[in-house]
Amino acid sequence: MQDRERRVLAQCDEVLDQTLEMTSDLVREYSVLGHERGALEVMEGWFERLGLPVERIPLDDPSLAQNPHHAPVDWPLGNRYNLVAALNPEASGPHLVFNGHLDVVPAEPTDTWTRPPWEPWQQEGWLYGRGAGDMKAGIAAMVMAVHAVRQAGVEIRLPLTLQTVIEEECSGNGALACIHRGHGGDFVLIPEPFGARIYSGQAGVVRFRVRVDGVPAHVLDTSAGSDAIETMQRLFPALKKLEAELNAERLPPYDVMAHPFNLNIGRFEGGNWASSVPAHAVIEGRIGFAPEASPASVMQRLVVAVQDAHVELELPGEPPRVDFHGFRSEGHLVDLESPGVCLLEACHRALTGRDAEHYLSTCTTDLRAFHVAAGVAGTCYGPVAERIHGVDERVNIESIRHTLKAYALFLCRWQQQVVAP
Amino acid sequence: MQDRERRVLAQCDEVLDQTLEMTSDLVREYSVLGHERGALEVMEGWFERLGLPVERIPLDDPSLAQNPHHAPVDWPLGNRYNLVAALNPEASGPHLVFNGHLDVVPAEPTDTWTRPPWEPWQQEGWLYGRGAGDMKAGIAAMVMAVHAVRQAGVEIRLPLTLQTVIEEECSGNGALACIHRGHGGDFVLIPEPFGARIYSGQAGVVRFRVRVDGVPAHVLDTSAGSDAIETMQRLFPALKKLEAELNAERLPPYDVMAHPFNLNIGRFEGGNWASSVPAHAVIEGRIGFAPEASPASVMQRLVVAVQDAHVELELPGEPPRVDFHGFRSEGHLVDLESPGVCLLEACHRALTGRDAEHYLSTCTTDLRAFHVAAGVAGTCYGPVAERIHGVDERVNIESIRHTLKAYALFLCRWQQQVVAP
Repeated sequence: MQDRERRVLAQCDEVLDQTLEMTSDLVREYSVLGHERGALEVMEGWFERLGLPVERIPLDDPSLAQNPHHAPVDWPLGNRYNLVAALNPEASGPHLVFNGHLDVVPAEPTDTWTRPPWEPWQQEGWLYGRGAGDMKAGIAAMVMAVHAVRQAGVEIRLPLTLQTVIEEECSGNGALACIHRGHGGDFVLIPEPFGARIYSGQAGVVRFRVRVDGVPAHVLDTSAGSDAIETMQRLFPALKKLEAELNAERLPPYDVMAHPFNLNIGRFEGGNWASSVPAHAVIEGRIGFAPEASPASVMQRLVVAVQDAHVELELPGEPPRVDFHGFRSEGHLVDLESPGVCLLEACHRALTGRDAEHYLSTCTTDLRAFHVAAGVAGTCYGPVAERIHGVDERVNIESIRHTLKAYALFLCRWQQQVVAP
Repeated sequence: MQDRERRVLAQCDEVLDQTLEMTSDLVREYSVLGHERGALEVMEGWFERLGLPVERIPLDDPSLAQNPHHAPVDWPLGNRYNLVAALNPEASGPHLVFNGHLDVVPAEPTDTWTRPPWEPWQQEGWLYGRGAGDMKAGIAAMVMAVHAVRQAGVEIRLPLTLQTVIEEECSGNGALACIHRGHGGDFVLIPEPFGARIYSGQAGVVRFRVRVDGVPAHVLDTSAGSDAIETMQRLFPALKKLEAELNAERLPPYDVMAHPFNLNIGRFEGGNWASSVPAHAVIEGRIGFAPEASPASVMQRLVVAVQDAHVELELPGEPPRVDFHGFRSEGHLVDLESPGVCLLEACHRALTGRDAEHYLSTCTTDLRAFHVAAGVAGTCYGPVAERIHGVDERVNIESIRHTLKAYALFLCRWQQQVVAP
């Protein structure tokens, strides 16, 4: 390792406390869908304090909706944006992107948390809070890595873009908006909290909603109505059957996993009153599938599965309505031979003395937008988190330090590879 | 029929349009739990226009909560009240009560309605809207019956109390508050929309809530969590088994019905995000039972059924939490020999030329409070409605006319029975 690199790594140790502070500042802003503004403002403040140029990339850009990779959504887009800090945008040379998402998934009901999920706390080497792991610590690490490099006296001369986006948890349209505005770059690193492993591929994901309308009635004669909650439950086996089929069809590299493609019915809402026969029921869920399958084909199979179940089970009422909002994301495999991935592996070896493990994912990340919409290579590499999307989510503090160092070292070497020092 | 009675009935025809107007005014105020204020203000305006004295009976009276028949609830009580119009409260002689409820059950999702449920409309002899049948038309009929009697020149000299209450659909605490304040009277008629039939008894009802906490996790490994929606569904058979037992135990007069005691799971809410394994699920429901059973015994059986299912099915996580809010109402049989009921039967015969049918109910009404908390006899007799608690709820307009006349005639004869004309 060069002296300069050692200086950079020492500087990473120096800025760890600030990194935790930024993470905590972001956790305090509970940035669920539609409520990202507080986190965006905190992030913008940090970019400014660190002397990084910052630009807002709105999600309601009309031309974005025309992008073939845009996912239709049914929530408002006004005043919602990503933040991009573009260094040396006019410089020649390969353009590096660090990307992370500011949005988090809901934590309700919060009474199961040890402390309120938007009041970050530290305990025995872990930082807790909703989004602490997924992925505010990763964002803080990637941003502070750039700061550490500069603090160590290393001038950044190549184009480097930091992106902190929204809608990673629902549509992927945030990252897509950055790419749509020309910020795709040539290689992207995303510090998703899957640990210090090279992310080697991800599943496709479609997000769906099914609505059943029953025939409502008073409970004095429940037989007069048809219970939408009960009808909805009778559809579940058809969805599970589709899940089983998608897993049975799996090919390498997913064949080494027993069940990589998960169905999740993540929300169920039905009826409105204890003494009214439920007149409606809605579920929202997601289903994973192999990189070989197209989102459109899986959407079609899901619609057919529900329609067939309605007919075969002779379910009452109108056929259920299936619609799709948010993710309709292809899976893909990471090009593990790409120069950026090879460089990351070298950095990992330099820092740990060991080869990096690979991590094949059963979910999706914003890597998808870079891969499918811009043909940009990239991978994820980040802190270690536990219980993401769960209760008492937490991120390991030493793993944040490692992420800081890995991103800083990567940035130094990326620049050195192509530009004389 | 006496001339005076004929004049009163003719006056009822005169005020039918006003009765429909009052019904529509009330339907326009969508008076679901916690939002009854608009309907109360409209009602108060009508009482005042008709020259009837009006008094507010608050539900947050601290002594009410000490009443042994009060149902514990977990929603706010401040600024929520019933309206009582007490005529001749100081007069001697038997005290007659007409009682109806202003609260309605939710109509959401309203997109299944032909028109918005709070925009009343008439079509082919029916008046439509949420609460049109259950029971704003009944309230309008009972109030306008009093007005018609007075307009016909018949002086009301006995104590008569009109009560328009809230919380009939959830706790029964509204009617109880009237009784608690001394407005129980000696006989009560409630124009619930079960038609021109003598209500002969009602089931007991307990309202319950069950909450399951899962072990939340990211969908990348659904097996890491335990799905609260799925766990909740696995409890349903235990609840259905209790329902079957309660029906198997039925005694006369409920033995002539195949299934008088209904379980209804009227609300299901679980999870919070398509791609998070559901961390919680809550159901709200009601279960009916025989007049012989006590609410406490049924509540106990329900708790045991859920706890046993949790153990026997080896369900994951903590035992489900069962709690009770709102109805914990005894069933009871109406004393069909009481003078008031006999008089109502006579009025029915006078108006229709036929004996009244009896109607044994599988649900509960505010009659319960009069029976159990004050030992006051009474029954229901009212308009014909369809799809109460359902979509496109409607009430038959000719049946409103009949209810008007029956209540007016009853009032005349009630007075004549005990006071020389």
